[in-house]
Amino acid sequence: MGEIGRNCLVLEYQDNILVIDAGIMFPSDDMPGVDLVIPDFQYLVERRDRVRGIIITHGHEDHIGGLPYLLSEVKAPVYATPLTRGLIEAKLRSRGLRDTADLHTLRPGDEVDLGPFQVTPFHVNHSIPDAVGFAIRTPVGLVMHTGDFKIDHTPLDGRPMDLGELAVFSSEGVRLLLSDSTNAESAGYTASESQLEDTFQQIFGRAKGRIVVATFASLLSRVQLVIETAARFGRRVAVAGRSMEENVAIAEGLGYVRFPEGVRVPLHEIGSLPDERVCILATGSQGEPNAALARMAAGNFRSVTIREGDTVVLSAKAIPGNETAIYRNIDGLFMRGADVIYGEKAGIHVSGHAAQEELKTILNLLRPQHFVPVHGEYRMLHLHARMAHEMGIPQENTTILRNGLPLELDQRTAAVGERVDIETVFIDGSVVGDVGASILRDRVALAQDGFVVVRVAVDRASGQLLAGPEIATQGFVHAPTAASMLETAESAIADAVRGNGNGDSSLAAEDISRRVKRRLENLFYDETRRRPVVVPMVTYA
Amino acid sequence: MGEIGRNCLVLEYQDNILVIDAGIMFPSDDMPGVDLVIPDFQYLVERRDRVRGIIITHGHEDHIGGLPYLLSEVKAPVYATPLTRGLIEAKLRSRGLRDTADLHTLRPGDEVDLGPFQVTPFHVNHSIPDAVGFAIRTPVGLVMHTGDFKIDHTPLDGRPMDLGELAVFSSEGVRLLLSDSTNAESAGYTASESQLEDTFQQIFGRAKGRIVVATFASLLSRVQLVIETAARFGRRVAVAGRSMEENVAIAEGLGYVRFPEGVRVPLHEIGSLPDERVCILATGSQGEPNAALARMAAGNFRSVTIREGDTVVLSAKAIPGNETAIYRNIDGLFMRGADVIYGEKAGIHVSGHAAQEELKTILNLLRPQHFVPVHGEYRMLHLHARMAHEMGIPQENTTILRNGLPLELDQRTAAVGERVDIETVFIDGSVVGDVGASILRDRVALAQDGFVVVRVAVDRASGQLLAGPEIATQGFVHAPTAASMLETAESAIADAVRGNGNGDSSLAAEDISRRVKRRLENLFYDETRRRPVVVPMVTYA
Repeated sequence: MGEIGRNCLVLEYQDNILVIDAGIMFPSDDMPGVDLVIPDFQYLVERRDRVRGIIITHGHEDHIGGLPYLLSEVKAPVYATPLTRGLIEAKLRSRGLRDTADLHTLRPGDEVDLGPFQVTPFHVNHSIPDAVGFAIRTPVGLVMHTGDFKIDHTPLDGRPMDLGELAVFSSEGVRLLLSDSTNAESAGYTASESQLEDTFQQIFGRAKGRIVVATFASLLSRVQLVIETAARFGRRVAVAGRSMEENVAIAEGLGYVRFPEGVRVPLHEIGSLPDERVCILATGSQGEPNAALARMAAGNFRSVTIREGDTVVLSAKAIPGNETAIYRNIDGLFMRGADVIYGEKAGIHVSGHAAQEELKTILNLLRPQHFVPVHGEYRMLHLHARMAHEMGIPQENTTILRNGLPLELDQRTAAVGERVDIETVFIDGSVVGDVGASILRDRVALAQDGFVVVRVAVDRASGQLLAGPEIATQGFVHAPTAASMLETAESAIADAVRGNGNGDSSLAAEDISRRVKRRLENLFYDETRRRPVVVPMVTYA
Repeated sequence: MGEIGRNCLVLEYQDNILVIDAGIMFPSDDMPGVDLVIPDFQYLVERRDRVRGIIITHGHEDHIGGLPYLLSEVKAPVYATPLTRGLIEAKLRSRGLRDTADLHTLRPGDEVDLGPFQVTPFHVNHSIPDAVGFAIRTPVGLVMHTGDFKIDHTPLDGRPMDLGELAVFSSEGVRLLLSDSTNAESAGYTASESQLEDTFQQIFGRAKGRIVVATFASLLSRVQLVIETAARFGRRVAVAGRSMEENVAIAEGLGYVRFPEGVRVPLHEIGSLPDERVCILATGSQGEPNAALARMAAGNFRSVTIREGDTVVLSAKAIPGNETAIYRNIDGLFMRGADVIYGEKAGIHVSGHAAQEELKTILNLLRPQHFVPVHGEYRMLHLHARMAHEMGIPQENTTILRNGLPLELDQRTAAVGERVDIETVFIDGSVVGDVGASILRDRVALAQDGFVVVRVAVDRASGQLLAGPEIATQGFVHAPTAASMLETAESAIADAVRGNGNGDSSLAAEDISRRVKRRLENLFYDETRRRPVVVPMVTYA
């Protein structure tokens, strides 16, 4: 068993492969220009005939976003609960992949045999409905995978996790547990979604003007809570933002979101309603620059112009790295006169992931022989693993999987296997996988100090510079201010070519390039303490 | 009165100017390559003869970092408390400006006349010793400036803020209050620095191996707490990181940091001590890539190799934008086997800024006629202003200063004056102010998709392309993969030139440039959905 990317887990038994989730990651600061990061499906592509099935825990992008890339190369059946399946269908349809995909609906309690793997989903609570974990009976024992979860005893949909059901699996003896580590840093318990009912009531009770609630488009229980609170306070609800519209439409079609009679209103009609009758559900809680909220904050969202009296609620947590963009929105909304309700202490968001005491509850309930913390940054996996040790699982029975290292289990033993070559695959624009570490390094360097391209023509016979060098530069210096330095650069280039050639035309273009490059890099650094990317173009004529 | 940059406030009365603080800002995500942001001192340079003095609240970079730039153009006397002065001296000395600077020591309670301004500093608590606020008697009334502050009734140095002293100023009638807004988002009170004593005792009591504490080099009360706790547990203390060494040396010289006899140990000698006798104070709590902690986390800090059994304490808050780098360090330290103690809930850091109830205490104590919230992002200023309204200060008497708008007070009235032209001044490398918005836009674009430079030589007589175009590109595509597209680009360029020229050589090089640029931008976008920066170099021969 191993990971071929964040949220894409591979279980392998003889010639049989079971895939759990196929997610995408969002790029971090050090991946400029990258749109998405997907798992390295090459391992599966090379073994496509062995893939018995792809089982999906829930419908978040970081669990289903990689499916179009995987399914275009590996034709395996996909199993998911109704809402998850609905979201997958929409995604595949927009890529023209719906018709060729082999999708199956799976419900908690179902049993499905996929080669030697007998899979049973179990209901878990999470920030999207219809999330499941999996109990997977394998020839080497029972493998339990929690998926993303929290233990919510009072969820808004009235369906708490069934701990008794888990206890039954536990009685079979759990060979291996894989458990969500996202909130392994958080002490105690994650609050119940129902705790938000009171806060939203207060906010709606107090607001005099329009109310805008921004949240994740996939956080459908939150969406439902906002709809119900709005209805209770006599407000009608409009939806702003494409992904929110799409998700609400899918969820409404499947019965996961319900608008009471007369509550829904098209966005373009809110202008005809009194302010105190308006509630807008918006995308953009992470500061995404093109989402509805950012456009409202910048004053260029056509349907809604934020003004004095509006209340904007940011019902979401900042995903690390998004803080600057989120704060820019908050500043903009305040400047336009809105009251903005945001921040952890405002009580307008609860996490969808289990905190330490819940994780311990699962570890205690399932008492696995082996433990693999999944879903989280290294520090979270580490803390989750430490928790397991403290609860009596021996250190040698806990494995943090990374960098393509698989865990090999047989009837009795477990060991870390041989490393599988896994690359991170970047998607930039329409091209998959051509951007690698060296292009990213170049981009990071270009962002720092720009570039200088110098074109140098050398006479093949004499080795002398033909005419003056030509320079193109951007992002480096303010050209008028730096005119004299750029002139110096031109004579430095001439020097570099002359000093090199001395009439000896046998020197290769690469030697001249290297010399010009070094000379210019030194000159620019001495003059400005900057290090632009210097690219010489040397031609012989 | 107005701001000419974050933390550089200008008070003006007739031909007299008083400057409060001269800080720097650290660049945000959208300022790639920028090292520092300083206030636009041009306003002061043009009025240099009027500047009666520069008064400094405390020794943090964001309050003194701009002084070398200001003093090299404006020769005005600088007034600061002993530690602040010591830090300023070190800064000026390293720039060769110490001898020409006119520095004066000022202590709480002193009175100094600077033209029409009578300045009296008052002691405040903050995360660096010797911080003050200012009471400034002016011809239009008493102006109070809190500086950066918190109200700590039990600070570790035994010197709480003297609220009674403030009450005396209050009895004179406060015309204008300027107050620190950094924590205006935080409800309640900021915890006392002394609350950390217990947590550090617990950590030191539990740790078996070496202890590394990373914190801000300027957080000298924290440094002193670590030294004292280490001494109590029989550990010796080494200092790692240049800024920490410098600050500790200055503070020790002035008596603000004290090492008990035999506690200090040079970093290179810790190897000869048993692990349980070692404590290291390190820089790098914000993830700075060249600081001691980052190098320890990456395994390339020569003096300290992190290993199983070490405990690393991150005694600092993440400044927004630094999260990714900080988490990378934490991951690295865990991977090397250290126990890492971090995060808000660990109780190892308290803020140096007043929270809402403290801000209200000051507002209530001073009951100013006018109020200007200072020091904070717009949302914090906004919340602080709202607090003032809620406490009875009329909305029209509260002003948020920004974008060069000054506040004008006379004996009776107050009004926002005419905008002063203030630019943000960026420092990149050794050059001050040449990097502007357009260079930053270029850098951001280069980071996204790299660049393509094409050199096109056109025959002056015929308007025909002379030889094939030459292309240099970086950060855009993987060249081998994209070879055929780059070939297509070459023929597109030839087309663009031909289609343009048609033998008509009267077309200017700019027209050809524009055509080639547009043609290539479209081609690259169609093929890759990327938008590299395209720079044509067109020459006639």
